[in-house]
Amino acid sequence: MPHALPGSADVLTRPENRSAARMARSMHDADRAVSSLEAFRRWFAAYVETESSEIHRIPFTELKGWRFEEPHGNLVHESGKFFSVRGLRVRNAPGAVPEWDQPIIHQPEVGILGILVKEFDGVPHCLMQAKMEPGNHNRVQISPTVQATRSNYTRVHGGRPVPYLDFFRNVSRHQILADVLQSEQGSWFYRKRNRNIIVETRDDVELLDGFYWLSVGQLHALLSSPDLVNMDSRTVMACLPFASPSPSGRWAIDGAPAARRPVEGTSIGAALARSLDPGYGALHSTGSVRNWFTGARAGFTGEAHLMDLGSVRDWQRSDDRISHDYGVFFDVMAVDVQTGSREVSSWTQPMIEARGQGVAAFLVQRIGGVLHVLVRVGSEPGFVDAIELAPTVQCTPENYAVLPAEAAPPFLDEVLHAPADAVRFDTVLSEEGGRFFHTRSRYLIVELPSERELAEPDEFRWLAVHQLSSLVQHSNYLNIQARTLLTCLHSLLGPAGGDRT
Amino acid sequence: MPHALPGSADVLTRPENRSAARMARSMHDADRAVSSLEAFRRWFAAYVETESSEIHRIPFTELKGWRFEEPHGNLVHESGKFFSVRGLRVRNAPGAVPEWDQPIIHQPEVGILGILVKEFDGVPHCLMQAKMEPGNHNRVQISPTVQATRSNYTRVHGGRPVPYLDFFRNVSRHQILADVLQSEQGSWFYRKRNRNIIVETRDDVELLDGFYWLSVGQLHALLSSPDLVNMDSRTVMACLPFASPSPSGRWAIDGAPAARRPVEGTSIGAALARSLDPGYGALHSTGSVRNWFTGARAGFTGEAHLMDLGSVRDWQRSDDRISHDYGVFFDVMAVDVQTGSREVSSWTQPMIEARGQGVAAFLVQRIGGVLHVLVRVGSEPGFVDAIELAPTVQCTPENYAVLPAEAAPPFLDEVLHAPADAVRFDTVLSEEGGRFFHTRSRYLIVELPSERELAEPDEFRWLAVHQLSSLVQHSNYLNIQARTLLTCLHSLLGPAGGDRT
Repeated sequence: MPHALPGSADVLTRPENRSAARMARSMHDADRAVSSLEAFRRWFAAYVETESSEIHRIPFTELKGWRFEEPHGNLVHESGKFFSVRGLRVRNAPGAVPEWDQPIIHQPEVGILGILVKEFDGVPHCLMQAKMEPGNHNRVQISPTVQATRSNYTRVHGGRPVPYLDFFRNVSRHQILADVLQSEQGSWFYRKRNRNIIVETRDDVELLDGFYWLSVGQLHALLSSPDLVNMDSRTVMACLPFASPSPSGRWAIDGAPAARRPVEGTSIGAALARSLDPGYGALHSTGSVRNWFTGARAGFTGEAHLMDLGSVRDWQRSDDRISHDYGVFFDVMAVDVQTGSREVSSWTQPMIEARGQGVAAFLVQRIGGVLHVLVRVGSEPGFVDAIELAPTVQCTPENYAVLPAEAAPPFLDEVLHAPADAVRFDTVLSEEGGRFFHTRSRYLIVELPSERELAEPDEFRWLAVHQLSSLVQHSNYLNIQARTLLTCLHSLLGPAGGDRT
Repeated sequence: MPHALPGSADVLTRPENRSAARMARSMHDADRAVSSLEAFRRWFAAYVETESSEIHRIPFTELKGWRFEEPHGNLVHESGKFFSVRGLRVRNAPGAVPEWDQPIIHQPEVGILGILVKEFDGVPHCLMQAKMEPGNHNRVQISPTVQATRSNYTRVHGGRPVPYLDFFRNVSRHQILADVLQSEQGSWFYRKRNRNIIVETRDDVELLDGFYWLSVGQLHALLSSPDLVNMDSRTVMACLPFASPSPSGRWAIDGAPAARRPVEGTSIGAALARSLDPGYGALHSTGSVRNWFTGARAGFTGEAHLMDLGSVRDWQRSDDRISHDYGVFFDVMAVDVQTGSREVSSWTQPMIEARGQGVAAFLVQRIGGVLHVLVRVGSEPGFVDAIELAPTVQCTPENYAVLPAEAAPPFLDEVLHAPADAVRFDTVLSEEGGRFFHTRSRYLIVELPSERELAEPDEFRWLAVHQLSSLVQHSNYLNIQARTLLTCLHSLLGPAGGDRT
């Protein structure tokens, strides 16, 4: 790619700080969106009505194209593509349970999760898709513009071309708002990452059947509907540029220490807005946060190695599922899918079905008038880089029936038994319906009163939201549950956050 | 760790932008340093004179505590600690040579490379160490304050405690200038990373024998002495905060597009100073750079798996070395070390000895008056995350005798045959002397004339230096050769860069 004549300063791109303010404004623009939320809901309900897919559990013997490869017992597709279910052996893990075996999904290819953004009447809109996934208990949820595995978009299975893919593959005419490889569930996937990409275009965009323009504010407002905005949408939305990359406004940022900014507004939305601007400060400096995180990663000595699924200990395979001996954690099972709405009209596949409903929660607190989030360094055996930032609480409470008492996570009671007026967000959302069957988690944001002094255990830190926003632009920092919660937190910039104090 | 009462804004840390300007100023402070460079050179020469170590090549049978473990043939230490030499099988690598086997060093533990910084008379100084390493052809080089493997600092081998380690392990009273896990040579190490940490203290620091305070400017000036500043120093120095995290000065950074700043000075040092300030802009936006890098990583399909050293193809083991059949790349060999200057007084160990001298070069160019660096997305089989940013050119020219002609890297002629007045830096420096025996590389910075138009091949991009500086604060972005060259580039802020035009 040639570049313009290098001698002139005109060739240079200057930093812009407009996106953050624009995103925040868009949270209050309901009446300027291209259509109303009511219109969207009618459209979505009509789409669901015409969506005729049927999903059935099947025994493993009815899988077509999939088999348990002997002598290893791995569950693989005959093409060698898609994914496989293998075993994982974990040793020296931190915490109360240092070693175990488990099944795990192995899918080395990187998929694309892309949201196309375009301004209408000055308001940024996201092109979203109503999409059936076999694991969704309600079949259809809102997906990103593009949600495609590499097998999808290189058309290994001979399906139709992926709509709008070209916007994400030939970006030179568009603006990149985010582009980063993000992890998925490290308990269920071995080193799986997807490319999370947000592209803003000024081109005319043809609106295809099954797609809808939602303003950024509308999309966030829909998060409080159970099982509506899917996991792939939530992780990409977490990368939207809500935070200012630099202290905004007339800050003295060179030389003298920054002057104190007046703190305006007392709603949680106002505390959150301050937390998105580095100029208001944070409890811990960037250096201190890096020291804490790098120390955790440097000190990590756990190991996780792929193994044969047939050799995992404490798990049993029956006709229709692979289950833990104690009936906890999750099952590997299989489904048959009949649909008119997808690239191919029918298929079978293995899936993971969690036992019990997960809980993922952020404790938040206004510290010096700036909203802070209590995050944790969490290890999951499938992470590429061992440690990522996790929610304050992330667990499946049912599992503690069989685990040592000390395995129960700190702050679990705090979030499950919070007074109603401290709960800022509380919605059950689905995990990815392409791999996980009827697997849902309750996402909570709970606010601690400002006057409450809470000691930070070693593996926890209070971070300002702009600190999380800066890290989420890079790989291997925020796990997928933390990214969903960051997205839920952004939704509090809208009307939901304005009327709370 | 409890925090202060959260209700008050006084508990918050505000962002500071002073460090970058302070680092730049320190490049011209030679007369304000605690001692002169001449005094340092006398001290160093006297230290070398008293350093009585002797290093001899030995056959593998004379290794003590190390053996080739049968039947796998891996070269291991009987304690299971330190490191081992194993095999690596590479498949589907990009480029002209898609597959090969090779020996590789496996050392899963994370070491600490730490520099302690303290201001004297307002000038930041680094506490550096004269340190013998068996692989250094000149035995003693300048090392960071702390350069310790986990085996060292947990004292597996029963050595003395590591001096100054406590400054890096209990940091609460100090300021963290950098803390990040950085890769090492991905061609020779399997997933090796060290913790690069820079801590600034206001405490009194006892000056121990073998240590010396050098100002930041002096330390960079010493880079142009061959084989003096060791690799571990160079990688940590690359993380010093030379770049402004935000556009400096009275920038309009919110709302309106940034106003044009006057470009003052025509020396390469001035062009470099502008390149360290995001306010002057860059050829490619941050979004565009992320898109390029993430695309390269997402598209990477190479694989590298550890294997038995005894089974690697095309390598032969003799009494005293493991060599490639064609006599290129590198050898695995062994040394005996007798010394009075180290934690233990004698030991034997395996090492890697490169065949031929490496070349690592940055092509730089002033684009719009702002210095830009041509970097490449490079894959090395030992990287944790497949792809990192590499120098414009990184190779060992001798190896191309046995490789296909198309394997020769782009721009090699450009840097090796640059006119003398275009060469900004040209010094032979040693690779890490704890693992690499007499292994040296020529580090070059070559400037292209501004009027020269150079097309960017797909795997190359011109980045402003502040873009590199921002990435080097995170893991898995800049490879170790690029980090050395970033450090060499910083040295051009000093007198060396000021008198060139």
